[in-house]
Amino acid sequence: MQDQDASLARTADIAQRILAGLEDVLARRPFGEIAVADIVASAGMSKRAFYEVYPHKAACLMDHADRFHTSWVEELEARVLDAPDRLAGAEVAVRAFLTQTHERPFLARAHLVDLYNLGPEAIALRRQVKGRYATMLQRLSAADDGTEKVELDGETALRIIGAIDDVLIALAFDDVDDAEFERRAQSAVALVRAVFVGLWVEQEWGPIDLNRLASGAAPDAS
Amino acid sequence: MQDQDASLARTADIAQRILAGLEDVLARRPFGEIAVADIVASAGMSKRAFYEVYPHKAACLMDHADRFHTSWVEELEARVLDAPDRLAGAEVAVRAFLTQTHERPFLARAHLVDLYNLGPEAIALRRQVKGRYATMLQRLSAADDGTEKVELDGETALRIIGAIDDVLIALAFDDVDDAEFERRAQSAVALVRAVFVGLWVEQEWGPIDLNRLASGAAPDAS
Repeated sequence: MQDQDASLARTADIAQRILAGLEDVLARRPFGEIAVADIVASAGMSKRAFYEVYPHKAACLMDHADRFHTSWVEELEARVLDAPDRLAGAEVAVRAFLTQTHERPFLARAHLVDLYNLGPEAIALRRQVKGRYATMLQRLSAADDGTEKVELDGETALRIIGAIDDVLIALAFDDVDDAEFERRAQSAVALVRAVFVGLWVEQEWGPIDLNRLASGAAPDAS
Repeated sequence: MQDQDASLARTADIAQRILAGLEDVLARRPFGEIAVADIVASAGMSKRAFYEVYPHKAACLMDHADRFHTSWVEELEARVLDAPDRLAGAEVAVRAFLTQTHERPFLARAHLVDLYNLGPEAIALRRQVKGRYATMLQRLSAADDGTEKVELDGETALRIIGAIDDVLIALAFDDVDDAEFERRAQSAVALVRAVFVGLWVEQEWGPIDLNRLASGAAPDAS
């Protein structure tokens, strides 16, 4: 048993260092231009060690994306819970994620786009990761803590995450200045706000007749 | 001049046939696995003809995406204008687009994802195409025809298009049955509706205090 524990600890340590190496190379170059040799060079490891842990480069990226987003989901949830209310929290979370995408565009491209080209397992992981953010969103919006609360089904939560995903993808590929970054961040937050207000209004009062709304009349309380 | 006209007509004709060839091959295989040889074989053209019109395969896909979406923007706008009201129109448009993505996943992947890997010009085109859909959305929501009307700034319009884009990307990669297709279509439409309701409510009455909303009170008419 002790031997097995030692072996597992060694594998975990190798993986840790390789993932740090991948992240380091992704700071400078897109995933498509990175070879296993680059990753191990940056990690100070041998190719042999790499292949002990990962069958191929794609598996390494998948493991990275998996861990990275697991920790981001926790991080963002904590930040939202720290904020004065849910929408303020949403703004903090959206901005934090946009900032990290902006700062590490190749890493973001790898997670957001390159995974699509790495086969069914990678595509499934991409979907799973999105699902974890959506579940977090549902958890947060359902919290009965006296702040904003809205019934958010899984599909709608996925659509909101998708809207943010789209902002992130664009941000990972476009060369944007601070003003443009600000515009995109604000519009992403505004969209999330609008969805919550829209869902909530109709959950409270039933379907809104948009023609009546336009005339400035208050909806009937149901 | 007549010679020049004839030459232009000939180029346009070659392009037309090559694009049809590309579309035909994309019905069966992903863009990454398609060679110029496959496109010209399917088009019944020579490689020489191909290179008379396009410098490379990426240019051919870019031309295809450009024309394809120009015509879809027109098509969708017409369908929305035909619908009884804007939101019914949005539903028709979203469903039409989801259906075509579902039916031609490789074509959709090429336009939605592969373009990102084909360099700055292709990325700029991807952004441009999205901008055209967003502009259409702004035009439609601003129409003062007695149906739903909401002030939609360019950024927010882009975010709505982005949310739909995200549904399309997922649909182009996931193997979904009819029930799942329906869930995604409904949630995409519901998101668009929620955004419009949310934007409109706050445009009419000013910022909604979500805590008050939760208590079931009607907002003050401003």
